[in-house]
Amino acid sequence: MRTAYYISDGTAITSEVFGHALLSLFTIEFEHITVPFVETEEQAKQVVKKISESFQDDGQRPLVFYTIVNTEVRKIISKSVGINYNFLDQFVAPLEIVLGVPSKPEKHRTHSIHEKTYDIRIEAVNYALANDDGSNLQEYDEADIILVGVSRSGKTPTSLYLALQYGIKAANYPFTEEDMGDILKMPPALKRYKDKMFGLTIEAQRLHQIRSERRANSRYASLQQCRMELREVENLYRKEKIPFLNSTRYSIEEISAKILATTGLQRKKY
Amino acid sequence: MRTAYYISDGTAITSEVFGHALLSLFTIEFEHITVPFVETEEQAKQVVKKISESFQDDGQRPLVFYTIVNTEVRKIISKSVGINYNFLDQFVAPLEIVLGVPSKPEKHRTHSIHEKTYDIRIEAVNYALANDDGSNLQEYDEADIILVGVSRSGKTPTSLYLALQYGIKAANYPFTEEDMGDILKMPPALKRYKDKMFGLTIEAQRLHQIRSERRANSRYASLQQCRMELREVENLYRKEKIPFLNSTRYSIEEISAKILATTGLQRKKY
Repeated sequence: MRTAYYISDGTAITSEVFGHALLSLFTIEFEHITVPFVETEEQAKQVVKKISESFQDDGQRPLVFYTIVNTEVRKIISKSVGINYNFLDQFVAPLEIVLGVPSKPEKHRTHSIHEKTYDIRIEAVNYALANDDGSNLQEYDEADIILVGVSRSGKTPTSLYLALQYGIKAANYPFTEEDMGDILKMPPALKRYKDKMFGLTIEAQRLHQIRSERRANSRYASLQQCRMELREVENLYRKEKIPFLNSTRYSIEEISAKILATTGLQRKKY
Repeated sequence: MRTAYYISDGTAITSEVFGHALLSLFTIEFEHITVPFVETEEQAKQVVKKISESFQDDGQRPLVFYTIVNTEVRKIISKSVGINYNFLDQFVAPLEIVLGVPSKPEKHRTHSIHEKTYDIRIEAVNYALANDDGSNLQEYDEADIILVGVSRSGKTPTSLYLALQYGIKAANYPFTEEDMGDILKMPPALKRYKDKMFGLTIEAQRLHQIRSERRANSRYASLQQCRMELREVENLYRKEKIPFLNSTRYSIEEISAKILATTGLQRKKY
């Protein structure tokens, strides 16, 4: 199998995302190797050696995606036997002309603790954890968004993603059987937060499957119960005009992007 | 302020990461606008109109980073008044030659629920939540890694990041005063998991500051208490040969990348 390397003097996340997107256009499988924090010439030489070994092992030149600020370190990597993609670099000179200023590369400017919004993100993660699963309504004034839905419809992973990636304070509230009664009504304690609410729903069959993995053969997991709960929450969303999304076919990343696009919610981090 | 657009028929995460990395090489501030899920010609025309409006508003041509699979939709975006970066495209033809096969672009191949490892990631998030803060040692056999450290040294956000981004099952265990006694010893229940343990530490002053935000003027937050706890855990790491990292100057992304690089832990997702 051909090897793809992702190399950087920082986390290498940018190299990974770029390389992964490019390689996903092909149906070939690759072995992926990330080498972060390559900061010295000695480390760079080690990596170049490793790339040569991969070449010898599988007989195919590795693909090497890299971003490195230090000129000497970069030069060493650029001479590896791999097919080298210094993929940001060719955009820099034209962009300098467009912007009319020289670039000022600095190590660790992206994905580092020096990003202005770093503390906001950590605070948002702590907020999401403290306000997970309706355990606590006292901090809902602070929420940027309140995800609602039945148990296991994707609220918790989505609220954590919104916090980690965007610095958004997302609470989540599960509608339970206690809320349901005969007909699900808006829980009184939530009424004043209606404008912050966003509903998730999911196909009954998928919910049944997810719940069965947790509690097989329970009433909680039964298809009948799943159908009933979903019918009730969807009716509530429509009646109360709460925007909502069926999460069945979407990843956390897609659900989060759709929530931002639908609600116009402002993210704290780019 | 000049505007930067990130446009895609998917989440636009790839465009954001690439564009953000490129723009971070400059000291200029930008207004950022993401437009995900541009899937029809009609939607593309709307976006092109929005780009024209940004140009009129601030008199500077917006920068437009985009990846779009559909040819007709892509053509419309490529004709916006912005400075258009179809940044993946120019790498595709040369890579086809290297790989000897044509590319097969598919909508939503990255960051979607169709990624093979999607369910593994969700399972890992649930695992991290269920095994947060030492609340539960029964599932430690399943852990890929067990983060240890004093309260507020960064264990929880790191374990969630490892789960969400890499599908790694990370438990976390806080050493408490009960564990400390006179000298911190390895808690008996953890002994058999020593090979999975990774320690976090942090500068006392920073820990004091973080804890003070939670419980001002408490013994818990006092500099003296922070110093004592950190001295004890660092002694334990050294004595038991547990690999550890001082998290003070690192982001979650950096801590996670360093943990993977140090331990050789295999991620489940690229």
